Amino acid sequence: MNKVGQSEVRVDGYDKATGRTKYYEDRMPADALYVRIKHAEKAHAIVKSIDTAAALAIPGVVKVLTCFDVPDITFPTAGHPWSMDPGHQDVADRKLLNTHVRYWGDDIAVVIADNEVAAMQGVRALTVEYEELPFVLDVQKAMEDGAPQLHERFPNNILKHTSNRFGDYQSAIKEEGLIKVEGWYETPTVQHCHIENHGCYAYEENGRIVVVSSTQIPHIIRRVVGQALGRPWGDIRVIKPYIGGGFGNKQDALYEPLCAWCTTQMGGRCVRIDCSREETFVSNRVRHAIRFHIVTWLRHDGTIAARKVECFSNQGAYASHGHSIVAKAMGSFHQHYPCPNMEEDSYTVFTNKPAAGAMRGYGMPQASFADESNIDECAHAVGMDPMEFRRLNIMPKGYKDNFSGNVNYYDTYRECMKKGAEIIDYERKMKEYQHQSGPVRRGIGLATFWYNTAVYPISLETSSNRMLLNLDGTVTMQCGETEIGQGADTAYAQMTAQAIGLKSYKDVHVVSCQDTDITPTGLGAYASRQTYVAGFSIKQTAEQLKEKILSYACEVTRQAVANMDITDGNIIRKGDGQVLMSLKELAMTAQYNPVHSEHITAESTYTIRNNAYSFGCTFAEVEVDIEMCKTKLLRIVNVHDCGNLINPALAEAQVHGGMSMAIGYGLSEQLIFDEKTGRPLNNNLLDYKLSTFMDHPNLEAYFIENPEPTSPFGTKALGEPPACSGAPAIRNAILNATGVAINQNPINPHVLFAQFSKAGLINDPWQEKEG
Amino acid sequence: MNKVGQSEVRVDGYDKATGRTKYYEDRMPADALYVRIKHAEKAHAIVKSIDTAAALAIPGVVKVLTCFDVPDITFPTAGHPWSMDPGHQDVADRKLLNTHVRYWGDDIAVVIADNEVAAMQGVRALTVEYEELPFVLDVQKAMEDGAPQLHERFPNNILKHTSNRFGDYQSAIKEEGLIKVEGWYETPTVQHCHIENHGCYAYEENGRIVVVSSTQIPHIIRRVVGQALGRPWGDIRVIKPYIGGGFGNKQDALYEPLCAWCTTQMGGRCVRIDCSREETFVSNRVRHAIRFHIVTWLRHDGTIAARKVECFSNQGAYASHGHSIVAKAMGSFHQHYPCPNMEEDSYTVFTNKPAAGAMRGYGMPQASFADESNIDECAHAVGMDPMEFRRLNIMPKGYKDNFSGNVNYYDTYRECMKKGAEIIDYERKMKEYQHQSGPVRRGIGLATFWYNTAVYPISLETSSNRMLLNLDGTVTMQCGETEIGQGADTAYAQMTAQAIGLKSYKDVHVVSCQDTDITPTGLGAYASRQTYVAGFSIKQTAEQLKEKILSYACEVTRQAVANMDITDGNIIRKGDGQVLMSLKELAMTAQYNPVHSEHITAESTYTIRNNAYSFGCTFAEVEVDIEMCKTKLLRIVNVHDCGNLINPALAEAQVHGGMSMAIGYGLSEQLIFDEKTGRPLNNNLLDYKLSTFMDHPNLEAYFIENPEPTSPFGTKALGEPPACSGAPAIRNAILNATGVAINQNPINPHVLFAQFSKAGLINDPWQEKEG
Repeated sequence: MNKVGQSEVRVDGYDKATGRTKYYEDRMPADALYVRIKHAEKAHAIVKSIDTAAALAIPGVVKVLTCFDVPDITFPTAGHPWSMDPGHQDVADRKLLNTHVRYWGDDIAVVIADNEVAAMQGVRALTVEYEELPFVLDVQKAMEDGAPQLHERFPNNILKHTSNRFGDYQSAIKEEGLIKVEGWYETPTVQHCHIENHGCYAYEENGRIVVVSSTQIPHIIRRVVGQALGRPWGDIRVIKPYIGGGFGNKQDALYEPLCAWCTTQMGGRCVRIDCSREETFVSNRVRHAIRFHIVTWLRHDGTIAARKVECFSNQGAYASHGHSIVAKAMGSFHQHYPCPNMEEDSYTVFTNKPAAGAMRGYGMPQASFADESNIDECAHAVGMDPMEFRRLNIMPKGYKDNFSGNVNYYDTYRECMKKGAEIIDYERKMKEYQHQSGPVRRGIGLATFWYNTAVYPISLETSSNRMLLNLDGTVTMQCGETEIGQGADTAYAQMTAQAIGLKSYKDVHVVSCQDTDITPTGLGAYASRQTYVAGFSIKQTAEQLKEKILSYACEVTRQAVANMDITDGNIIRKGDGQVLMSLKELAMTAQYNPVHSEHITAESTYTIRNNAYSFGCTFAEVEVDIEMCKTKLLRIVNVHDCGNLINPALAEAQVHGGMSMAIGYGLSEQLIFDEKTGRPLNNNLLDYKLSTFMDHPNLEAYFIENPEPTSPFGTKALGEPPACSGAPAIRNAILNATGVAINQNPINPHVLFAQFSKAGLINDPWQEKEG
Repeated sequence: MNKVGQSEVRVDGYDKATGRTKYYEDRMPADALYVRIKHAEKAHAIVKSIDTAAALAIPGVVKVLTCFDVPDITFPTAGHPWSMDPGHQDVADRKLLNTHVRYWGDDIAVVIADNEVAAMQGVRALTVEYEELPFVLDVQKAMEDGAPQLHERFPNNILKHTSNRFGDYQSAIKEEGLIKVEGWYETPTVQHCHIENHGCYAYEENGRIVVVSSTQIPHIIRRVVGQALGRPWGDIRVIKPYIGGGFGNKQDALYEPLCAWCTTQMGGRCVRIDCSREETFVSNRVRHAIRFHIVTWLRHDGTIAARKVECFSNQGAYASHGHSIVAKAMGSFHQHYPCPNMEEDSYTVFTNKPAAGAMRGYGMPQASFADESNIDECAHAVGMDPMEFRRLNIMPKGYKDNFSGNVNYYDTYRECMKKGAEIIDYERKMKEYQHQSGPVRRGIGLATFWYNTAVYPISLETSSNRMLLNLDGTVTMQCGETEIGQGADTAYAQMTAQAIGLKSYKDVHVVSCQDTDITPTGLGAYASRQTYVAGFSIKQTAEQLKEKILSYACEVTRQAVANMDITDGNIIRKGDGQVLMSLKELAMTAQYNPVHSEHITAESTYTIRNNAYSFGCTFAEVEVDIEMCKTKLLRIVNVHDCGNLINPALAEAQVHGGMSMAIGYGLSEQLIFDEKTGRPLNNNLLDYKLSTFMDHPNLEAYFIENPEPTSPFGTKALGEPPACSGAPAIRNAILNATGVAINQNPINPHVLFAQFSKAGLINDPWQEKEG
């Protein structure tokens, strides 16, 4: 029986559905002290003093620590694997608490108390004296000479600028008769809004620091905590229990370093930091707002002669993942629609906004919105159907990217579009919606994307794995790739069962909790890589375990190793399929043999030096009420090629989650700041319009299963891809319905009102009054 | 620098001294339900019914489970490794809760409540209807025909009877002129009195059961819980945090199976069972009270012609470790004082007392008391100095036991006695105390013992170990041999540092907490074996880790593996000692090499097929106030040969603890039962006279370090040996002081009063009255 490819029930499903699963708070020692953070209430300032007397007078408050107390160490927070090459290391630009306040919400002090109320009262009782500085929120204004400077090391606030040049753009655009399609595209600041806010607790144990954290990346957090505190990395132990989502926010060192330091200041007592939703919105990480400028030069036959892309990424106050995100976004353009003459430039720029970090899609939702908006306009410009235009220009079968080495082995883009178009009845509806008038109009839109499966060759890709044969013939499996709600453990169980030859994925006990003291090193959940990279080490380790099992079986059965195999949990003789003994019998014999006892385990590391293209598209159908400036999403269909599906039901769930995020990105979500103060205005789930299932039509997910040749189980990225193409598909559907091209998201009623007014579809009563 | 052999500070010392160490209660989830056990208040009865209505009516009580609800599965509890040979498996004789009550304190029901008070009230509110049965407390009465029967399978309550025959005892005793020294020796029921009572909690996780327990033997508990609940062993996960002592009581499945079952009855909610001290005394395990009958036939030259030993071991109500203990006691006689003609018989007999199990010394304190009492009388009988008599008859250098294969490689006994005698000034004091009169007299006494270091060849000896090279060049080490307060982790750290070539034992992080899901299988703390058996797997695994480190170093340094070594945490070139790179550099390079990344770890199992003799002796000096019937211990000196010392300070501490236990065994400790009801009378630390430092003189510990040839680090048993020879040395000192041979312990004022009255040293006013 095939263990992979089945829609098995999640290994953690029952516990999660019934509330048994233990998250970091469920493991909290009862006597943990509460640490609450004082966040600056200025967008840019220098803290001159903090008066702690009133806070310390509050019963229950045991200590106040301020930005004047922390070690003089700057550290990076990005959840990237360490690089031995200093040029590849993340930017170290913040201290545990900062005197130089760089955004409204920056961390400047903590109050530690024996109860939460006292800690909160203590924070309110602090009196802070600031020296205010001018601030800047806009990415391009921040690059201007004379703009407020956030970090001395980075003149004009430019963290990094990189470019790509292909062919000769300047000459190419001189070609006769080219049509120029130019646009500025604006994407918003949004937040991950995972269900479980980040939190952690820390204590000392035998002179070392233990941090239990809601994180995606325990092994990386260990290193960052070591850096931040100036301690040997082996002094730090990070434990990751079950977590309630992360979406990239927890692919960053959030409050683990601060929490670890607090315990050292409390004599090793357990201290807890629990983020409120308000803090999560502002003082964790957000998605980069990226502004794009795209100029496309088209021939009348619809081919692209030349293209220029500029990307301006709003980094906010601290580097976090920094330039990686816009670099990925920029790199998507020339692969998505290859064109001989291109100029791509990207800038990552500090502003006095919350720090932007990793978020599901890592620059691709932004790039996809800009690229696919521009491409739709290109189609309009040459009078082609948008799908036809894409079929003409999109990355062809056999395309190879020379940097990643990725190859488009199939004609996947066209397969995905064909399937999606059939499902949503694209051709018929395109015709049907061609000549609408009246206030309520329907439209259909399409967007495509590609995605890498891992970070090779940019960063290290390594996966270690350990398997233990249990006395009942089941196998325990440990790896550093983390379950963060996405169902990774279930996929691992299925792959492990298959690779060893167990009867069922239920015969695999995945150790879901990572503990850096004992878990084989893995890099954690990010880059949609886990099933892919863990696949390599699972297969390799399973083969080693199998070899050890069969070697021991040879002692017992006297059959040659080469003449045995493991099937359905039994050791069989290959020649005739005869069952020689069960794995349980073998394990018991091996463990309890007084002459040759063996606890059969295997452990190995695999260095992954591959990457793989994932593809997909979204079709959206909308009904726009022009007068009400409202968009109703009627249908949304995603089609993905993520290679072979390990678990179709979980794959579908993954796509559903991404589609939901994409709908919010397209229609409603945006973190808003007061232009006068830099204060966030809607950092809560009432005012921030998170997309929920009440806003969704039925989410339709389909797959094209083209097996990935480089992948041990034929699988490739699916974690982030579903979040990429939804927003531009909706945008293009609105364009299709109304003829109005809207180059910013979310396309909420405010935006529609402005755009429809500008397009003359509605009258702006205020405009009229003024006019 | 030598890593072993130094008195390093304990790795867990600071945390334990400052209260940071996390025991099971410190890890308890806040919402755990309290399980309190209803213990029978009859020594022997059948439960006819339990009325639970009143208990269930108590607010906070959520469930009552009784002996009528439990699965119909009997299971064994002894903490022995599993044997594939059914004849070697422990006796399965109890259910989770029992309708057949076999001792006063047997478990018959549980009340589960959301707070402890409600649970306790619930237990008191249960109304139990019993059918009372006659009971028996005395071991020999229990063997009589017609005695009350505890277990159907075992007629006359005899769990087991074994014997040894050497030469021809019956003919040998016919030799002319032999002197017969005969005695009956009685040892008491005592309890371990570890600081931390046993407790545990359990919950379900993804359909499996997790038990966190204060136990010495996590891997064995996993198996017993599986057996008791009829679940596959892989379904059970046992976690052992730091524990506050065990002394063998926690080398048994105590309430882990019941706790595990309770969580399954509560839908997987966390449930806790915490033993009170009163429960610990009666419803955990106790030391076997063994009655000995010894007949020694001496020649006038002091040699032993023949010897007969009968041992009657009071097992109490359930088998637990059963016959192993008295078998070990019996086996000690012919090795201690080898004699060509011997008859040894031992009986393990059920009685209606608390179940006896493992306790520090495992039969040897009992055997030592009887043997060394009898030997002292033998010396008197032939007019020899007791030490001289021992020097003549004790196991000689070169002695080999054919069963264990153990060899006495040195003349250790004589070396130990010589050293101890010098320290306590034996010769001079023997003379000084020869002719005392008056009510206060002093005396000096001596006792010797031997001890095995492991359980080979009786049981499996296997040790698995895993080592991980950390990024800072430190090493994390995991093993199944447990820290239970004795300092094992520190010894492991020292051995690991030495075997790998680290700079200091502080560069080893021992994972103290065992988790059967991930810890390499080890059998836990018992039989004084851990340093010995773990030594094998530490050395083997360290060599494998070293090989992997040097192989990787070869890639980096281009030096041949054979030309490199690891010293003080550096990889050096053997030829000139040149430091090539530090382990930190190697670890970082290996982990973060994008071409060949490796998390360097090693794991292996070693099957130990050796055992080793440990030796030692105690000298005691007492002052006896005859009229007051009081013994004052003036000096006590232990001399041990446990091979090389890994950590002299910890070895000394180990001996101090054992000496304390031996003093209590000799002078004060005894669990007393009401003869009329079978009820325990002093199951608390007020009435049970636990020996404390207030009762002790300065405890003097010395060592003879004869390296054990079979041992990887030259070390052998020290855990239990210090508890063996103290009581008989005190007894012999009292004999030396008063001329009264007391053949029972503890020798408390009650006993002295009776014995001195009998000897005519004092007048018994009650005797006189009656007479």
